[in-house]
Amino acid sequence: MTGPPLDQGVLVVGTGLLGTSLGLALRRAGVEVWLNDSDADALARAVDLGAGIPRGVGPPAGLAVVAVPPAVTAAVVADVLGHGLAEYATDVASVKVLPAAQVRTLANEPGRYVGGHPMAGREVSGPESALVDLFDGRPWVLCPDENTDPHAVTRALAVARLVGAVPVTMPAADHDAAVALVSHAPHLVAALVAGRLAGAPEHEIRLAGPGVSDVTRVAAGDPVLWSEILAANAAAVADVLADLRSDLDRALAALASPAAVGGRDDLTRLLRSGVDGRGRLPGKHGAPPTDYATVAVVVDDRPGQLAALFADAGRAGVNVEDVRIEHSPGQPVGTVELDVRPGADVALTAALRAAGWSVRG
Amino acid sequence: MTGPPLDQGVLVVGTGLLGTSLGLALRRAGVEVWLNDSDADALARAVDLGAGIPRGVGPPAGLAVVAVPPAVTAAVVADVLGHGLAEYATDVASVKVLPAAQVRTLANEPGRYVGGHPMAGREVSGPESALVDLFDGRPWVLCPDENTDPHAVTRALAVARLVGAVPVTMPAADHDAAVALVSHAPHLVAALVAGRLAGAPEHEIRLAGPGVSDVTRVAAGDPVLWSEILAANAAAVADVLADLRSDLDRALAALASPAAVGGRDDLTRLLRSGVDGRGRLPGKHGAPPTDYATVAVVVDDRPGQLAALFADAGRAGVNVEDVRIEHSPGQPVGTVELDVRPGADVALTAALRAAGWSVRG
Repeated sequence: MTGPPLDQGVLVVGTGLLGTSLGLALRRAGVEVWLNDSDADALARAVDLGAGIPRGVGPPAGLAVVAVPPAVTAAVVADVLGHGLAEYATDVASVKVLPAAQVRTLANEPGRYVGGHPMAGREVSGPESALVDLFDGRPWVLCPDENTDPHAVTRALAVARLVGAVPVTMPAADHDAAVALVSHAPHLVAALVAGRLAGAPEHEIRLAGPGVSDVTRVAAGDPVLWSEILAANAAAVADVLADLRSDLDRALAALASPAAVGGRDDLTRLLRSGVDGRGRLPGKHGAPPTDYATVAVVVDDRPGQLAALFADAGRAGVNVEDVRIEHSPGQPVGTVELDVRPGADVALTAALRAAGWSVRG
Repeated sequence: MTGPPLDQGVLVVGTGLLGTSLGLALRRAGVEVWLNDSDADALARAVDLGAGIPRGVGPPAGLAVVAVPPAVTAAVVADVLGHGLAEYATDVASVKVLPAAQVRTLANEPGRYVGGHPMAGREVSGPESALVDLFDGRPWVLCPDENTDPHAVTRALAVARLVGAVPVTMPAADHDAAVALVSHAPHLVAALVAGRLAGAPEHEIRLAGPGVSDVTRVAAGDPVLWSEILAANAAAVADVLADLRSDLDRALAALASPAAVGGRDDLTRLLRSGVDGRGRLPGKHGAPPTDYATVAVVVDDRPGQLAALFADAGRAGVNVEDVRIEHSPGQPVGTVELDVRPGADVALTAALRAAGWSVRG
């Protein structure tokens, strides 16, 4: 288990859009990739595309990436680990709290799993839609918890980096709240806006322009997959939608008295808030690259250390942007390098030392 | 008033994004363009860009296109007609019922005005943002009513065609309901979704991807202009939003019991309706061109005929896709050519003849 973390190859379970894209990107990076899918036809197509070779008999892969629908993710993770198909496992499901809880119930060694979510996708599905550069520059969230084995994190981080993604670590609950806000609720609302068009007369539809086309683009996504995603993150999505409903009620109240100064002001305020929110989104090609400052911490090489470290960093009000874990062969300790925004390294170093951590430098 | 309808030139009042783009496109087509703007600086910039020359003393233009904010559109139309700056006038405001009613109140000869709305725009404003091809392939709605002088329609149609737009005629109320559905309500909802991002923590925003970026793109539009548009079309927008709120409540109810089969089914149904609605939108480059069938009707050259003709076509259930008006010099009658979907010409001919119209062929 020393040496480059993906020497033992990667097993990709599920050869849909994400799994096949991942296989292509890992192959591009020179990683050995095994593929598996309960649908023999989808598997054959992914193999034909060059995403990897079918999983045969052999030693366990260094990491399994489970890229199956959210509802069966945990069961497949438990199965892969239980049958020794891979030493560690991660997944790509769009929600993270629910599968982590299910893995804790189903798997014998749940610490060998770390939840993952590459923030990449398309409105089309299946292996034929796969793109080798699907993950380029996209955030890839990992959600280690207090039981996660650091090796699972190290290997999942290596996969994310090798396929061109930007690894991000955060607690599963934070992830689920974030994707509810920036993905799941917007998707549902886009679908509702698009749904109003479904029964509209043709002479209304023909006036549609690029604006409504943008607003509703994501609504073309697979309804069954998306209802599964929304159901798996129901509480967090409902929180966002409840706030949105309040804003919608304010808008409706303003529209009921549009000639009143207060009504117009209220509309303008709501629209101005939209301009502000829109302005916070990264540009078309992602946020500009940032040079991070690094804080190196000596840790015991045992489960729980990483999560405790993240928790203390969080209490210090510092967001960890990236993490690398270095192990010294034969040593019971390793070094965790935390990348943070420039300037935040000073505060983080002080806070971690105050909390009893051994910070280098 | 015989001869090509724009021989006397076009006066563009208001040299913002739309007015300047219109000037550029009309100049490209070889039409003489005069420009006017209460903001001397904006006027000078539009002139510098080659959109036309400042309006001087001289005979009236053949048509004025009033491209000023919706709230002052009717007053400017009445002013332009009252001072004899142009023989006929149209506008580009995003709503049509309100300005038409205001023109009826303010103008001495309201029949010389025909409401217009080119379905084109950008999230940026001002003459510098103008594009010569802004109107290419975009619908340009005209809303003649029972008092509209056919010459106003003929000239506005000529402008729309010369700048590359696709003219569409419909009653003002139909227009306002249509844009509420395909533009105003989606804009407001996009702004509300974007508004939820305004106060979100940075670690949530950084997970934003192309999806929410699409959904919220239009929310960057000018809040003051848009609150004016929404207020001017308040009732129609509120109708769409009220339906949307019902759907949102259904979604919230489903999310409250996501594990129940009914809840999941309800989510899937809402999402599927979104797929259906999304599928009705024209593609990126507009709907494929259609070869229309033409029905030629002999009409008296007097106000009201065109509106009566459209009303009878509407009662026959036929949507008029395009219209051309031909005048015979020195004759009190002309020919109106109505373009309709292939196959609809037979039904339309029969219906119009039954209603007493003289249909050729």
